[in-house]
Amino acid sequence: MDVGFIGLGRMGRPMASNLCRKGFRLTVNDINPEAVAELELLQARGAGTVAEAAAAGQVIVTMLPNSAIVEQVVGGAEGVLAHARPGSVVLDMSTIDPETTDRLARQAEARGIGFVDAPVGRLASHADRGESLFMVGAAPEHFETVRPLLEAMGSTIHHCGPVGSGTRTKLVNNFLAVASCQMNAEALALSQRFGLTLETTLEVLYGTTAVNGQLKIAWPTKVLKGDTDPGFTIDLAHKDLTLIVEAANAAKVPMPMAAAAREAFSTARARGFGGRDFSAMADALCDVAGIEKPRLRQA
Amino acid sequence: MDVGFIGLGRMGRPMASNLCRKGFRLTVNDINPEAVAELELLQARGAGTVAEAAAAGQVIVTMLPNSAIVEQVVGGAEGVLAHARPGSVVLDMSTIDPETTDRLARQAEARGIGFVDAPVGRLASHADRGESLFMVGAAPEHFETVRPLLEAMGSTIHHCGPVGSGTRTKLVNNFLAVASCQMNAEALALSQRFGLTLETTLEVLYGTTAVNGQLKIAWPTKVLKGDTDPGFTIDLAHKDLTLIVEAANAAKVPMPMAAAAREAFSTARARGFGGRDFSAMADALCDVAGIEKPRLRQA
Amino acid sequence: MDVGFIGLGRMGRPMASNLCRKGFRLTVNDINPEAVAELELLQARGAGTVAEAAAAGQVIVTMLPNSAIVEQVVGGAEGVLAHARPGSVVLDMSTIDPETTDRLARQAEARGIGFVDAPVGRLASHADRGESLFMVGAAPEHFETVRPLLEAMGSTIHHCGPVGSGTRTKLVNNFLAVASCQMNAEALALSQRFGLTLETTLEVLYGTTAVNGQLKIAWPTKVLKGDTDPGFTIDLAHKDLTLIVEAANAAKVPMPMAAAAREAFSTARARGFGGRDFSAMADALCDVAGIEKPRLRQA
Amino acid sequence: MDVGFIGLGRMGRPMASNLCRKGFRLTVNDINPEAVAELELLQARGAGTVAEAAAAGQVIVTMLPNSAIVEQVVGGAEGVLAHARPGSVVLDMSTIDPETTDRLARQAEARGIGFVDAPVGRLASHADRGESLFMVGAAPEHFETVRPLLEAMGSTIHHCGPVGSGTRTKLVNNFLAVASCQMNAEALALSQRFGLTLETTLEVLYGTTAVNGQLKIAWPTKVLKGDTDPGFTIDLAHKDLTLIVEAANAAKVPMPMAAAAREAFSTARARGFGGRDFSAMADALCDVAGIEKPRLRQA
Repeated sequence: MDVGFIGLGRMGRPMASNLCRKGFRLTVNDINPEAVAELELLQARGAGTVAEAAAAGQVIVTMLPNSAIVEQVVGGAEGVLAHARPGSVVLDMSTIDPETTDRLARQAEARGIGFVDAPVGRLASHADRGESLFMVGAAPEHFETVRPLLEAMGSTIHHCGPVGSGTRTKLVNNFLAVASCQMNAEALALSQRFGLTLETTLEVLYGTTAVNGQLKIAWPTKVLKGDTDPGFTIDLAHKDLTLIVEAANAAKVPMPMAAAAREAFSTARARGFGGRDFSAMADALCDVAGIEKPRLRQA
Repeated sequence: MDVGFIGLGRMGRPMASNLCRKGFRLTVNDINPEAVAELELLQARGAGTVAEAAAAGQVIVTMLPNSAIVEQVVGGAEGVLAHARPGSVVLDMSTIDPETTDRLARQAEARGIGFVDAPVGRLASHADRGESLFMVGAAPEHFETVRPLLEAMGSTIHHCGPVGSGTRTKLVNNFLAVASCQMNAEALALSQRFGLTLETTLEVLYGTTAVNGQLKIAWPTKVLKGDTDPGFTIDLAHKDLTLIVEAANAAKVPMPMAAAAREAFSTARARGFGGRDFSAMADALCDVAGIEKPRLRQA
Repeated sequence: MDVGFIGLGRMGRPMASNLCRKGFRLTVNDINPEAVAELELLQARGAGTVAEAAAAGQVIVTMLPNSAIVEQVVGGAEGVLAHARPGSVVLDMSTIDPETTDRLARQAEARGIGFVDAPVGRLASHADRGESLFMVGAAPEHFETVRPLLEAMGSTIHHCGPVGSGTRTKLVNNFLAVASCQMNAEALALSQRFGLTLETTLEVLYGTTAVNGQLKIAWPTKVLKGDTDPGFTIDLAHKDLTLIVEAANAAKVPMPMAAAAREAFSTARARGFGGRDFSAMADALCDVAGIEKPRLRQA
Repeated sequence: MDVGFIGLGRMGRPMASNLCRKGFRLTVNDINPEAVAELELLQARGAGTVAEAAAAGQVIVTMLPNSAIVEQVVGGAEGVLAHARPGSVVLDMSTIDPETTDRLARQAEARGIGFVDAPVGRLASHADRGESLFMVGAAPEHFETVRPLLEAMGSTIHHCGPVGSGTRTKLVNNFLAVASCQMNAEALALSQRFGLTLETTLEVLYGTTAVNGQLKIAWPTKVLKGDTDPGFTIDLAHKDLTLIVEAANAAKVPMPMAAAAREAFSTARARGFGGRDFSAMADALCDVAGIEKPRLRQA
């Protein structure tokens, strides 16, 4: 299948690479020529413009940093929708605000182009291994069209409903994942200040309904053993919380804990933790309050 | 072993019953004579005063509603410490503020009496079945003294550290368990307003680090199937959050999400949800915001 | 002086009218032809396009609803900057996010066009009477150019600094004005629940540093006497809080009270108070919590 | 008139002194003998026990640090109510939680003793000059009894309603006064980060409904000119916020901004600002976020 692929950043590059390796014929575009050159080594064709990449594919994948850029690259005068073939399908895998998704989907439909939103779950390291999780919003026929691509890039695919559902599901999911970090930070800062033994506290928490995925799965290999190299940065988590809080306010859903969490991430960023792994919210809070960081004793 | 047992409420009664059934000789006291009479049917001896129950035991168990009552019953002029035998051990299983625990432990030590704090985890229904979880703060020798009682009343025992550690661990644990309810409420209210399918949203969340114990274990059999009969009420959860937020403020640990969560529980109580199960925080938020309650379709 | 004026909504119309009445020669544009016709009665010239209005003025005033619309109307392909005369000055009086202001100012400068941001304080009724307050960001020479217009539309003019300073000052100002409403709502809800007499409570507050402008100046003639007809709606206040919280997060300034206030406004909107005066935040909180609304006894 | 006076701390000492100077015959008690000795120089009689001071007065004034101490000193076995003469009046001027006030008032009534709550507004420096403000809860006849004392100690007296109303009014008042500090801190931190000129920002704010008493009256002579010597410390402000938030939660009044403010004060205390003036909340936030402190240029 011919695929246009626009956006070869930290996530887009391995995703495009996996498509190439699994036999898709890619025409790729990015503002960074080195990223394009890297994909050309895998037999992708480099395109100098968005328009060229858009025109080349039965499916055009976009993997871009934020709503404004997606709006411009997909919906702009020289963008994807202006140059994609009728009958093709745009597969936007960026994490953006759902109203932008809805607007672009309507514009696509008016031009006889399909539109699927399929933001990506899990970390960049999963994308490297073709083990991403996708939350997909698509009409059934468009879902069937893009499914082979998704299977080439990831290992878990959720068809969440019509177009727009993927983006919205990701916001709900990432709210819990990201806000849990600040909630855990508060719990562990309290445990530390109380002079409790971290290992014992965790043993208790892991055996009750107090447990959560961040605390049980992610943190023991990251912040709790002192590794705050980013799998997913506090800056990116803050970006997601911003999308979540904005979308919730637009939809008149009061989310006071989400709002409190976002300000905590803002504090962490103001204090220089923005580039650290989002589990380092524990360190950021302990840093603010003068509390010893939570660390597991070496086995 | 001779055991004094003071406080035969919803939790204390099954705990004392389990002790009786497993061969401990109990002398029991409560302000409610019916509760005492019920235990007498299980061969416990009823005591008309706290002092009498305190004097009768090698271990004196207290299971009482709040810090002020524990302060009075244990530390008061006619209380447990004033009448317990030297060498006996007070086993306080109430959930109270840790500074009260510390103060009573010091008073006990000054009188040659041991003090153990062992607040109870899990629900009243677990206590009925002798399947409670205990978080224990105790010197090693006192822990050994009370261990047989704990084994008779529960199935999971965590020795968290010296006296005071049980109470503090419970606060950390219950913060996560209780605050998760409001976090989940916000997530599901957003999902509902977005028009997502609840079953699909949950399927996604259950497969990522967004998952938490409330959402995965507790809620599917409670609020999500429309059962808000209390296992643990919003009023009690609010009481715990109050202890947590107060203890954190006393210890100078900033917990903005905890504070936001408590106000959400306060809102729920103001709106008449106080007697509902704490999973009904989902309903309380949807009620405030005019959103359809999250309910799983019947299988 | 020849003036282009784009945006004849609830605020723009009286502002343009005051300019006409005081001798400026206006060329006006709006998407609503009735608003244009109304101004034509005051000798303004109606323009069918933004471009036509932009080309007609030595100063081009824009008074538009939000950042996206300003971006398009001022910076778009058929927008003000594309058609304004070199040497003219754009006077944007909309309330928008400051990064948009900065971006448009740079684009203007590149074309040899001046740019001034001068968002409007006070209410629509003040605009009617030519008594608005303006917070102006401008280079000194551009400030001198627009000053006669500002003097024709308002009675208080603050030159806050270079371009961008007007918008930023308005955000700081409106944060305090708007967030005070929720703070006052919490105070008065507490007073009501406590059973205190509203008049006495206010008498005390007015004599201490607890006082604020909303409580002292605005509320006695609005919500406290039962008038919640909008001078400034909760929806608009929520829009301003959104700009504030977003700008603060972008600038890494943690504002936990602002974030909490915004969720309270979101709750009020979810409950149908969005079209009420922003002093009705007091009613919204009392409505949520089942508390009697605060009302002054009739004199 | 014979007056018992218990509690000669930073506030109690000048209040008692003013009573002595204006002709009241005081019998004073404090745990600190030096404070008692100081009053003896003003012809007060020192009492070795609370009981002795209580028995000596037609009115017994208590000015104590917190609810627990008032409970013990007034309601305890060797306390004021146990030893006061029938027909005397207890005038509690401490700032405590209103439920304690109500409980003690009921105990007093049962013994034929009057009870008045009259917590003190304004700063210690006002108490020195006899210029305090009092918020009084009292039955009319008891109000008349204590009025001469209040007039000797302060310059503004508000009779807010029946017993309990003084304490409750103070909580409402201090919520606004104290929470305003964090609100102002957020506003000025934003202004500083935006690069605005502090003097200009204040000039704007002072002319709109954004103004508040802290910003206008208190701050220009304190934090904004670099003086953070305590008139009223962040620790005491945090104590008041704690009373407010607890009382609101007990009364089911959701106060999300109050809760957010309290965590901000907790952060400031964790960072060592607890002993500074409460206007230094501005410095505490700027310190956390790496923002230059707001300071007025020297005239």
